Amino acid sequence: MASDGFRPLDEKLLVEYLKATPILAEKLGNQFDKLEIKEVGDGNLNFVYIVISPSGSFVIKQALPYIRCIGESWPMTKERAYFEVTTLKEHGRLCPDHVPEVYHFDRLMCLIGMRYIEPPHIILRKGLIAGIEYPLLAEHISDYIAKTLFYTSLLYLTTMDHKRAVAEFCGNVELCRLTEQVVFSDPYKVSEHNRWTSPYLDSDAEAVREDNILKLEIAELKSKFCERAQALIHGDLHTGSVMVTGDSTQVIDPEFGFYGPMGFDIGAFVGNLILAYFAQDGHAVAGNDRKPYKVWILKTITETWNLFYKKFTALWDEHKDGLGEAYLPAIYNNPDVQLLVKQKYMKELFHDTLGFGAAKMIRRIVGVAHVEDFESIKDAKKRADCERKALNFAKNLLKERKNYQSINEVVSAMEQLDSQKLSI
Amino acid sequence: MASDGFRPLDEKLLVEYLKATPILAEKLGNQFDKLEIKEVGDGNLNFVYIVISPSGSFVIKQALPYIRCIGESWPMTKERAYFEVTTLKEHGRLCPDHVPEVYHFDRLMCLIGMRYIEPPHIILRKGLIAGIEYPLLAEHISDYIAKTLFYTSLLYLTTMDHKRAVAEFCGNVELCRLTEQVVFSDPYKVSEHNRWTSPYLDSDAEAVREDNILKLEIAELKSKFCERAQALIHGDLHTGSVMVTGDSTQVIDPEFGFYGPMGFDIGAFVGNLILAYFAQDGHAVAGNDRKPYKVWILKTITETWNLFYKKFTALWDEHKDGLGEAYLPAIYNNPDVQLLVKQKYMKELFHDTLGFGAAKMIRRIVGVAHVEDFESIKDAKKRADCERKALNFAKNLLKERKNYQSINEVVSAMEQLDSQKLSI
Repeated sequence: MASDGFRPLDEKLLVEYLKATPILAEKLGNQFDKLEIKEVGDGNLNFVYIVISPSGSFVIKQALPYIRCIGESWPMTKERAYFEVTTLKEHGRLCPDHVPEVYHFDRLMCLIGMRYIEPPHIILRKGLIAGIEYPLLAEHISDYIAKTLFYTSLLYLTTMDHKRAVAEFCGNVELCRLTEQVVFSDPYKVSEHNRWTSPYLDSDAEAVREDNILKLEIAELKSKFCERAQALIHGDLHTGSVMVTGDSTQVIDPEFGFYGPMGFDIGAFVGNLILAYFAQDGHAVAGNDRKPYKVWILKTITETWNLFYKKFTALWDEHKDGLGEAYLPAIYNNPDVQLLVKQKYMKELFHDTLGFGAAKMIRRIVGVAHVEDFESIKDAKKRADCERKALNFAKNLLKERKNYQSINEVVSAMEQLDSQKLSI
Repeated sequence: MASDGFRPLDEKLLVEYLKATPILAEKLGNQFDKLEIKEVGDGNLNFVYIVISPSGSFVIKQALPYIRCIGESWPMTKERAYFEVTTLKEHGRLCPDHVPEVYHFDRLMCLIGMRYIEPPHIILRKGLIAGIEYPLLAEHISDYIAKTLFYTSLLYLTTMDHKRAVAEFCGNVELCRLTEQVVFSDPYKVSEHNRWTSPYLDSDAEAVREDNILKLEIAELKSKFCERAQALIHGDLHTGSVMVTGDSTQVIDPEFGFYGPMGFDIGAFVGNLILAYFAQDGHAVAGNDRKPYKVWILKTITETWNLFYKKFTALWDEHKDGLGEAYLPAIYNNPDVQLLVKQKYMKELFHDTLGFGAAKMIRRIVGVAHVEDFESIKDAKKRADCERKALNFAKNLLKERKNYQSINEVVSAMEQLDSQKLSI
């Protein structure tokens, strides 16, 4: 055991730990002979164990002091577990239907015990690759983002509560810095971490690194990410951070949580749906051209934003006479001005969403961490064609985001680009 | 003495305190029989004693747990002394020529011992009322704002250092909240604290409270003030926070210091110069029409911004290969993109400056705390005429700020409005 009380668990040590931890032992009925333990950390960062017994189950997640998918050569504070559990608890309080319950947190061990999100839940990204429709996805995710973002913003909080929370989450700086690097920096420069489908996308990757206008726009977004403490965001809300069934949607892994720009979360989700859309042609097979599925993805993108808009502004209306200090009722005291400020706020948020969404797309094609949506397309030429469409769409979206007036226009632009013959 | 170790000083207790505090006693040569002590806290918040002896002098500033100019009915954390001294030290390190040296800080007593800024230094505002030209003012102030803002921003700091400092200054939330109230809220609603030159400005004040577009714009600025941690700002940089002689400029009273938008500081200074400009007609007397002085104020406004622009971007160039994480040299790697990002950054900062400057003007005419520039005009009708011009200019500036391309355009608009006959 290290002098700070931390030791990385393996399966054997995990069982010892469970025996010594009453709240977890009780969940297992204090029976340890029929335990089923599976290590399933297929994410990029942590070790995750599923623990199942006849009397109960949970997940144990432990942060190690480096990035798992890269190894000990890329150190990363294990304190991220604290910010993950703090965000899980706060988001869970605000939106219990879509956030797993936390049972236990051990700060020294950087270890979280939480609900096991049982089968048939699967990672949404895998469902999107398999072509499965989730009719309630937009409804659920819009619920999650509307509630978590609204209730942690100055639309609802006092300045006192807001600044206190902002200060605490400044502590998650190493994870913020990781995002700054992999989302806002590496794709736009030569970096040993970058990769892409070579040789097909060599010139596309180079074009990103030489596009001054793109660099101008990404700088604006990076500055918002670094400086604007708008709400407690998940910080990594891609389709790999969501688990789904036909009637359940659970958001996991908020270790990047901090007070940042709301559009970063909405954009992460929408951007990853756009990636899923452009990956579909790579998954088409004889007898399943994925065309109806692509229509469903477009519908889900549209509904996610529109339902978010509706729910978020409804929360605003509901609490407009509350303690939130952004728009005091004595000032914003007539329907005209209330409408004006709401339209302005939501318009900026929409453009932030498109910008951050585009940034998250670009980094998944020419940056360090790619997405299974594309990686699972075995034919490299075909994969590159799909990725190029997504990349071109993202570049345009990043540059032109402020000219889009509605999500319908975005979806139309996707269809239009998708229908064009590729020109290299 | 209160249980927390705090006790408000009077002159007698002060002498006891000095005797018991070696670093201060030494400055006085340990001689206490020829002490000259003057209470000069003419500011709004604190008690300030000047202590002079044959061997040395200093100022003792003590924060009390309420706002001095209003009284114990408006409580205000005395912890502000900690943030004042922290800002003084940091700004003093970055710009020692224009920030008084700190000799001593007693956190329990909320007490700062610092350089006595000796005569003939006077408060700049008083000099502006007296019609005194300060040929080096723009040079000095641009130096102060360029250095303090640049070196505490992500243009110079790493994300790690920036977020650590942001977190610390979140603790100054009560003072931030006071600004939110008196600058961004009270003037736009009915408030017991508001006052104006009545009855002349009754309808003007009412018009501010009923102007939906003004409310829309002030909301955008308030949100930047509350959410955007751009640099360690002074937080109250009006012309009463600056002491001057013909060749010295000293910035005092940064108790509102926190990580906020840079434009708030630059705007505070420029906005208060604009107030001084529109007040001049009220100070004109036979034989001194103040016209040349008004030209000097306009020139100082122009030079302040232009010199700031020059110095700030020069610092940026000088440190572009440093540790600052906003614009990595490997990305912003050609003169075209370096110019593009600089122009965009400075344009937004210019518009922020105009917006915050306008907001600071408006609040000084229809809000709680007025400025001596106008208050010293004894004839209420004449005062109201001056204030109305300033108010009308500020309203236009707040609404139209993004249409101004240069400081020259702002100054031209001032002259134009000033030359118009007042229509009520």
